[in-house]
Amino acid sequence: MHAVILSIGDELVLGQTVDTNSAWLAQQLVSHGIQTAWHQTLCDEQPGIVRALRQAAEDADFVLVSGGLGPTEDDLTREALAEAMGVDLVVDAASLAQLEAFFARRNRPMPQRNRVQAMHPRGSSMIVNHHGTAPGLKAGLGRAVVYVMPGVPREMQHMFTDSVLPELAAAAGDLVILTTRINTFGLGESDLAQRLGDLMVRERNPKVGTTVSDGFCCVRIRSEFPDHATAATRLDATVEAVTRAVGPTVFGRDEQTLAENLVALLKQEHLTVATAESCTGGLVGTMITDVPGSSAVYRGGWVTYSDAMKAAQLGVPEDMLAVHGAVSEPVVRAMAAGALHHSGAELAVSLTGIAGPDGGTPDKPVGTVWIGLAARRHDGGTHVEAALVRNHGDRAAIRDRSAKCALQMLRFHIMGVPLDEVQWLKRAGPLSSAPTA
Amino acid sequence: MHAVILSIGDELVLGQTVDTNSAWLAQQLVSHGIQTAWHQTLCDEQPGIVRALRQAAEDADFVLVSGGLGPTEDDLTREALAEAMGVDLVVDAASLAQLEAFFARRNRPMPQRNRVQAMHPRGSSMIVNHHGTAPGLKAGLGRAVVYVMPGVPREMQHMFTDSVLPELAAAAGDLVILTTRINTFGLGESDLAQRLGDLMVRERNPKVGTTVSDGFCCVRIRSEFPDHATAATRLDATVEAVTRAVGPTVFGRDEQTLAENLVALLKQEHLTVATAESCTGGLVGTMITDVPGSSAVYRGGWVTYSDAMKAAQLGVPEDMLAVHGAVSEPVVRAMAAGALHHSGAELAVSLTGIAGPDGGTPDKPVGTVWIGLAARRHDGGTHVEAALVRNHGDRAAIRDRSAKCALQMLRFHIMGVPLDEVQWLKRAGPLSSAPTA
Repeated sequence: MHAVILSIGDELVLGQTVDTNSAWLAQQLVSHGIQTAWHQTLCDEQPGIVRALRQAAEDADFVLVSGGLGPTEDDLTREALAEAMGVDLVVDAASLAQLEAFFARRNRPMPQRNRVQAMHPRGSSMIVNHHGTAPGLKAGLGRAVVYVMPGVPREMQHMFTDSVLPELAAAAGDLVILTTRINTFGLGESDLAQRLGDLMVRERNPKVGTTVSDGFCCVRIRSEFPDHATAATRLDATVEAVTRAVGPTVFGRDEQTLAENLVALLKQEHLTVATAESCTGGLVGTMITDVPGSSAVYRGGWVTYSDAMKAAQLGVPEDMLAVHGAVSEPVVRAMAAGALHHSGAELAVSLTGIAGPDGGTPDKPVGTVWIGLAARRHDGGTHVEAALVRNHGDRAAIRDRSAKCALQMLRFHIMGVPLDEVQWLKRAGPLSSAPTA
Repeated sequence: MHAVILSIGDELVLGQTVDTNSAWLAQQLVSHGIQTAWHQTLCDEQPGIVRALRQAAEDADFVLVSGGLGPTEDDLTREALAEAMGVDLVVDAASLAQLEAFFARRNRPMPQRNRVQAMHPRGSSMIVNHHGTAPGLKAGLGRAVVYVMPGVPREMQHMFTDSVLPELAAAAGDLVILTTRINTFGLGESDLAQRLGDLMVRERNPKVGTTVSDGFCCVRIRSEFPDHATAATRLDATVEAVTRAVGPTVFGRDEQTLAENLVALLKQEHLTVATAESCTGGLVGTMITDVPGSSAVYRGGWVTYSDAMKAAQLGVPEDMLAVHGAVSEPVVRAMAAGALHHSGAELAVSLTGIAGPDGGTPDKPVGTVWIGLAARRHDGGTHVEAALVRNHGDRAAIRDRSAKCALQMLRFHIMGVPLDEVQWLKRAGPLSSAPTA
């Protein structure tokens, strides 16, 4: 079984919007044993869409189209599908009623333009959109089945999962392809490859590869066998071998984020955490609270962007700020200790650094970030440690990597693993973790 | 002049990674009058890459390839280019020295695997990579020029801008294509289209279209004329017409973010701001501090995720929390007033809501978010207002839209524009903005 994916939209061809739908669809397809033959990005021009639809219907069993179903004049996919099929457009009464209900729920009159969204090529059927105003379309074209879905990723994903995937899965072929991803943070790609060694040999099945994305080094595993049981068993064995080879920087599989893993770990250990952020401006708090249910383990935090806030809110001594500067080990330690004290949490993490592009000095170049961690000790005292990370990249990358280092530092502390395993902290410079009372 | 864009990587075909490089490259090309003929995503398999390179070299003047230059065994682009050219691979001494220097700067020994990154097809030249370990490649293939760049977006973008674009621009053709994007927040796509009216007629040049992305409704403008002066003049006139038609929800052009516009406005008015966040967990602070130089206008803030933090840090009365609940108008007002008082800023914004997926009630369904704004009055008193927004979508969307509503609410307050213009606040429910002493 083969599929072709078409993405429609001037904004995609011009590059004004990144096409995330094709990757998402390809991923869904491959996990159900359907290979994507090719993928094309097309303008909002009817003749081009018609030609591509016809070509795709010759090459594949399924044609998955997203985009061009909106209410405006530059949305031409339904017209193009009708032309490719050689039929006219007709109004679907049920879809029109559903559209009107959608706007009624939001207490708004339905704009006249939206009426076109209730039209479809004669002989095609409409797919209900529970998450937006554009119904999808299903039609036969030559020997292929064409599914047209909205371009808005959330709407497309819901429609694909609810209405399209069950039909594709039922028709899927013999070869079972299972894929998974092991997520790591704290090792470079070459180092990861050296740890993986022979696991990465090209001929291996399951196949093992690495990719880098947003500072994460991920290990991709792809298991291809005629039957599901073998594919699953061999995949699991490779997952275990990879996890053992890589070590504790592994934090999760597939879509699991570093923050999700941390929140699960905090719940398991009945611990709560607080944050004190300067250069990251709230990003660590944002990452933790991205996780549903994080309120069980996250007390909250401070964004002490100014020195005055560091002193007034976290009790960082003003003379310490004056002598050592805001980006320094004593200040990051005082921030962590202050956040622990004022939040009542069992753990606190703090960050202060230079995210750039300006503000760097020879001593403290852009990318210099101190991370502090404070924890309540069983004897009632406070353990405080600090690490220095020197990030490369632009402001966004420096902030992102620093926030992730802070999350990984919390994980390692909870698991009792030495920080040395996080190369980006270890290799970065002097590491200090002397406990203080 | 035509280009073909090839993206190499199993992870792209499988959909494990989204290909952002193609969109970025297409955007760069079109702004220099070079049309992208097609775009293909390919596996890390040598035969497929060789065939695609040969096909691309027949169809286009320039072939832009990204990916497959890494140090691991599944990186095969340089081997494929050599095979397509019918030559062998040779070591480049200068590149080898540069690679060794890259690792030396990071105080790490160079892994043996990275050596292959100093090799290139005989007859090709290498392109220096100032931001990573993989040098790029430039080679003639048939009548086309092939540029191979790293797959890591940051490295690819630097290499393209510094070394590839100047060569392409010099060779570019006659038709000048200028594009821009007008960014808005707070109007739906249909409403935007109704305001734009005839500006969206298909035959118009400059062409006007709309796209939705991350809650932003953007107006794309594309101006195509034989000479640069006409293209620029007509583009500017359309920008002005669009801006006038849409109104104050417009916050910027092209890559300007809502937070960048807000920070610029705060600087211009010599105002500072503080944040008090519950459901957004630090996202508003993160958005503001994403902007370089935001320290001039942002004091910092609180992530009061627990009721205890709201009471202890912002002075929200405990009986108010008990009577009205944390997600309520009195609480959001008290949070904003508390943040204003404790930060010393001239403005404070606060958020409390239900981001889901759990925690909704019939009265306060998931997506219910109160936003508060406090400002110092000239008479020494405090103005406090609040708005209710009812967001649709998942947890991430609810948090993101809420944070953007808060930024837009600050903008409107500073500009003295009534909140009614932000449909998502106005249409959402009761709006209250009575000043309190």
